[in-house]
Amino acid sequence: MNATITKTAITTDDLLSHLQGHRNLTRRTIEAFPEKEFFNHSLGGMRTFAEMIMELLGIAAPGVQEIVSGKSAPLVEHVDHENSKAKMLQLWDEATAQINVLWPQISEARFQENITLFGMYEGTVWSSLFYFIDNEIHHRGQGYVYLRSLGIEPPAFYER
Amino acid sequence: MNATITKTAITTDDLLSHLQGHRNLTRRTIEAFPEKEFFNHSLGGMRTFAEMIMELLGIAAPGVQEIVSGKSAPLVEHVDHENSKAKMLQLWDEATAQINVLWPQISEARFQENITLFGMYEGTVWSSLFYFIDNEIHHRGQGYVYLRSLGIEPPAFYER
Repeated sequence: MNATITKTAITTDDLLSHLQGHRNLTRRTIEAFPEKEFFNHSLGGMRTFAEMIMELLGIAAPGVQEIVSGKSAPLVEHVDHENSKAKMLQLWDEATAQINVLWPQISEARFQENITLFGMYEGTVWSSLFYFIDNEIHHRGQGYVYLRSLGIEPPAFYER
Repeated sequence: MNATITKTAITTDDLLSHLQGHRNLTRRTIEAFPEKEFFNHSLGGMRTFAEMIMELLGIAAPGVQEIVSGKSAPLVEHVDHENSKAKMLQLWDEATAQINVLWPQISEARFQENITLFGMYEGTVWSSLFYFIDNEIHHRGQGYVYLRSLGIEPPAFYER
């Protein structure tokens, strides 16, 4: 990497903080849902927020694991949630802890390498990691509409 | 900047591409709305998508301008849109072009500096730029629910 032509926008440590700040906000969004509506409520024929969260659980920690190990596995978008928000929050927290352990194992050079994540999605490692974050923000924003349509105030977007 | 302790996750050039990819997707989301519903439709007592887009227009180009110039100005979340989607798209494109011109004027060191954007929002330059992107993704995700509730298929999230 040549410092004369490559300027750093964000470091790997800062990106982890950024990602975990978003995970923290998504956790509080899950908490804001009533138990029943988390699993049942939707708008416009879309998925429930529980289904979206299962997708996010399938992507973040398994994705970082694949980036570290180089071993591809299929995307799994369902978990045994036992119809329980507490169980989903437990799985969320486990994924958060797993990402913190794995993250320092991603070398600087790795961020610029190409990867075919889950055997399907081509990109660089950095673009894949941003996809994880962006997809989480996207679905959480949809969860905010679900909450508002239930008359519930979502958590403040700027608090992480 | 010490290369032994600071690892680059994403370069400034890549971050500009990333940001502009999102702006491109948001543009196509605006296009997907019928003229009337863009200005009138909402769910859960929330703002219309047009109002959200005006917020985004107030943030991105003026925010990058402030990062470059160091001169603070209040956040303006309203524009003269003439109740016309075409006018909003024109303002969107002008902002996109303005960001492309301004971006190379942000030095590498500037990304780590502190800023109080619009005289109100404290953070680093990098965290402010990510806020612009994240806030756009957040509201665009809400626009997707509006579109689905109108029976309209939103643009593919992964296409930029």
